[in-house]
Amino acid sequence: MKFNPVELIVKKRNGLRLNKDEISFFVQNYINGNIPDYQMSSLLMSIFFQGMEMNEIIDLTGSYIESGARIDFDTYLNTIDKHSTGGVGDKISIILAPVMAACGAYVPMISGRGLGHTGGTLDKLEAIPGFKTRFSDEEFKKMVYQSGLAIIAQSENLVPADKKIYALRDVSGTVESLALITASIMSKKIAEGAKNLVIDLKVGSGAFMKTQSDAEKLAHNLITTGNAFGQNVKVVFTAMNSPIGHKIGNALEIIECIDYLKGKTIPDLELITNELLSQMLICSGITQTKQEALIKIKEVISNGKAMEKFIQMLVNQGGNPNVVEDYSLFGQSKHKIPIIAKKSGFIQSINSQEIGYALIRISAGRMVLSSELDYTAGCEFYKKQGEKIEKGELVGLVYCQNQEEGQKVAGRILESIQVSESEPGSEKLILKVI
Amino acid sequence: MKFNPVELIVKKRNGLRLNKDEISFFVQNYINGNIPDYQMSSLLMSIFFQGMEMNEIIDLTGSYIESGARIDFDTYLNTIDKHSTGGVGDKISIILAPVMAACGAYVPMISGRGLGHTGGTLDKLEAIPGFKTRFSDEEFKKMVYQSGLAIIAQSENLVPADKKIYALRDVSGTVESLALITASIMSKKIAEGAKNLVIDLKVGSGAFMKTQSDAEKLAHNLITTGNAFGQNVKVVFTAMNSPIGHKIGNALEIIECIDYLKGKTIPDLELITNELLSQMLICSGITQTKQEALIKIKEVISNGKAMEKFIQMLVNQGGNPNVVEDYSLFGQSKHKIPIIAKKSGFIQSINSQEIGYALIRISAGRMVLSSELDYTAGCEFYKKQGEKIEKGELVGLVYCQNQEEGQKVAGRILESIQVSESEPGSEKLILKVI
Repeated sequence: MKFNPVELIVKKRNGLRLNKDEISFFVQNYINGNIPDYQMSSLLMSIFFQGMEMNEIIDLTGSYIESGARIDFDTYLNTIDKHSTGGVGDKISIILAPVMAACGAYVPMISGRGLGHTGGTLDKLEAIPGFKTRFSDEEFKKMVYQSGLAIIAQSENLVPADKKIYALRDVSGTVESLALITASIMSKKIAEGAKNLVIDLKVGSGAFMKTQSDAEKLAHNLITTGNAFGQNVKVVFTAMNSPIGHKIGNALEIIECIDYLKGKTIPDLELITNELLSQMLICSGITQTKQEALIKIKEVISNGKAMEKFIQMLVNQGGNPNVVEDYSLFGQSKHKIPIIAKKSGFIQSINSQEIGYALIRISAGRMVLSSELDYTAGCEFYKKQGEKIEKGELVGLVYCQNQEEGQKVAGRILESIQVSESEPGSEKLILKVI
Repeated sequence: MKFNPVELIVKKRNGLRLNKDEISFFVQNYINGNIPDYQMSSLLMSIFFQGMEMNEIIDLTGSYIESGARIDFDTYLNTIDKHSTGGVGDKISIILAPVMAACGAYVPMISGRGLGHTGGTLDKLEAIPGFKTRFSDEEFKKMVYQSGLAIIAQSENLVPADKKIYALRDVSGTVESLALITASIMSKKIAEGAKNLVIDLKVGSGAFMKTQSDAEKLAHNLITTGNAFGQNVKVVFTAMNSPIGHKIGNALEIIECIDYLKGKTIPDLELITNELLSQMLICSGITQTKQEALIKIKEVISNGKAMEKFIQMLVNQGGNPNVVEDYSLFGQSKHKIPIIAKKSGFIQSINSQEIGYALIRISAGRMVLSSELDYTAGCEFYKKQGEKIEKGELVGLVYCQNQEEGQKVAGRILESIQVSESEPGSEKLILKVI
C-alpha cells in the first residue's frame, strides 16, 4: 500500500491536514476492502474531533464522487434540485418537484429514507401503492428529460463510498460531524448532475443542527463544496421546532401534499414551500424576483399544471394515480386514538423530535434501516403552535394498528405539547437565506 | 444486548463518564465477539480525545482483569515486580529479577516484546539458546515458589481483553492514551499477583512519555489504579534520552547483563538499576534504608548469589546456562561495521529513538509483532553522552548480517550522536521518585 493507514489516522488525530492523495487513498482502499472497518471508524472519529479544513472536505467529497458513476445532463437543461437536512412532517420535496417541473425546470432528485426521528421522502412516496424508487441511471435520466422530474433512491453505482461510510458512521457514533455531513450530502447532489441546488437547512430542537451557529458553518461548507464542483448552491435556513403541516406519517403526508397541490391552505407548509420555490425559480432564471415567483407558483397550482406533473411522476414510477382522488387506496389503519388536551391554554411549542421518536413505536418511522414501516401509521394535529386549546378538547389523532401502543404514543405526543396561559408569539419559520 | 453500543460510544465522545456497568458491558461483549472491532476502535478513539476519570480507568482495568484468570500467591510470599514503560538499551529487568530473588524476594514477572523503537525483555531472553517464555500459570507459580523468579510471556488466559484491545490499538492509532496505557499495564501487573510493584517510568526523547507533565499524570493513574486493587505501587521517573549501557541488541544486552552480574562497572546502568532495586527492597521490607539496600545489592552481586539466581532461571526456563561463561554460544553476526567519528568534540546527546528505529533495519528490533528478529544484531558504544571524542576515532560497532544495511545503520547512528565543542553537563538520570 502507498501509505500506512495507521499513520494517516494518527496524522488526523493529531490535528494535521490530510492531502488529496491521502484522502483518496483511504477512501478508495476502504471501498476495495483493503482498509478494514475498524481503521475507517477510527479515522471518522478523529475527523469528528479534529474537523477538516475546507480543502480537505472538498477532497473528501471528490473521493466519494470518484467512487462511482456520475450522471450528466445536457448543459442546456435547466436542472435544479433541493435537499433538506431532515425534519418532522417535512413533505416539502414532494410538493416542490412537481411545481418546479410545471414551471419549466428539470428536477433530478435522489432522495433518502427516514432515520432516527426524521422522515424520508422515499418512504413517503412508497406509501403510494405501486410506487417504485429503484431505477437505472438511464431510466432516471429519461424520466427527467421527458417529464421534468423523478424522485428515486441512490443506485448501487452512484457514490458507493458514501453508502458504505454512511452505514459505518451510523453504527460507530460518527454521524454528527460537519465535515462528514457535508461530503455525504454534496457528493450525492453533485453526482446526480443538477446545475443548481437549494438546501433547506433545518435549525432547532427537531433538527440535527440545534444551533444557528452550527448551521451557518454547515451552510458555508455546503456552498463552498458545491461551488468547487461547479454547482450553484443556495441555503435557506428554516426553523424545525414544531412539525410542519398537520400530518405526520408516510401515507398521511402524501395525502397532505395532494391536498396542497389541489389548493388547500396550510399556512406553515406554504410559507416554507414558497420560500424554497422562490429561491429555486430565481436560481434557475425562470423568474427574476420573489414576487414574480409567487405569482408563477400560484398559477401552476391553481391551473392544475403542478398536479399534472405529480400524476406524471406517479405514472412514470409505477404508482397508482387514482390515489389523487381516492385516499382510501392508501389503506386504513385499524385504530384512531384521540389526543385529548389535559389543560387549557396556548400551545407554546410542540417538540417534534419527541414526536418523531414516539411514532417509531407504531412503525411510522424507523430506528434502523432494516425496520419495517407501517405506511398508514402516524398522527394528525388539529391545533398548531400558538393556538388556543381547551381542556378536554380533541387536539389530534394517532393512526395505528395496535391500540395499546397507539395509546402510549398518544400520551407521549400529548407530553410533547407544551401548554401555558400566556399567548406566545408565533414561531419565525424562515430564519435566513444565503 | 443490555446497552446500545453506539449510545455508549456517543456518551464517551460527548465527554460524559461511563459507569462500571457500561464499561464492563463493552469490554465483555467485545471479547465475546458481540461488539465488532469498528465499534471498539471508535470507542478507543473517543477515549483518546475525551480521556477517562480515575474511576473509569479503575473500572476499565477491572474489566480487563475479569476477562481472564488471575494468579494468586500465598499472602506470606514477599512478591514484587517491576515494570518499565520501555526504552532503548533497557535490560534492567534481567538484572533486577535475579538480584531481588537473591535478596529473598519473589519476582513473578510477565514481560512483553519490543515494538517500535523500544526493545522487549522477552526478545532479549529468547536470544539465549533454548530459553522458553511460554508456561502455564501453574508452571509459572512453581518456578516463582521454588527459585524466587520467572520471566515469562502473557499466557492466553491472563487478561485476554488487554491482548485483544492492545492489538487493535496498535492498528487503529489509539496507543497514546493515558487511560488506555494505564489499564493495559496495571491489568497485567495486578492479574499476575505481585503484592508490590515498582515502575520505571521513562521520560524523554527516547521514551513514549516525552514530557514530565504527561509522565506525572500517568504515574498518578498507575499508583491510584494499583492501590484500588490492593497493590502497592512506587514510581521512579528516569531519563530516557541516551541509550542505557553500552550495548543495544538482544544477545548483546544479555551479554551486558551477565557482565554486570559478574561485577563489571557500567555507571549509567548501575545508577538506574540501584535506584530501582533500592525502592524494591524498601518496598518489600527487606531493607529499611537506601544505604542498607545498596550494601545488600553489592553483597549478592559480589558473592555470586545473584548470578546463581540468574542461572537457576535459565535452567528452569530451558536456556543453556553455559552462555554465562561462553558468549560464542549466542552465535556471531557476520559483519561488524565500525562507527567512526566525523568530527572532534563532546557528545552532547545520543538520540536513542533514532537508534532504535535504525536498528529495526537489521532486525535487532521489530516494527510489527510478526517481524522476525536477528538476535545477534545490534550495536555497541564505546563512548557515552558527555565524553570527548576525536575525529576518526572508533566510537562504536554495528553487528549485522548484511554489510550494506549495516553501513546505512552505522550512518544513521552517527547522525544521532550530536557532537559540539563545549563540554556538556552529564544528564540527570533519576528524575523523581513517588
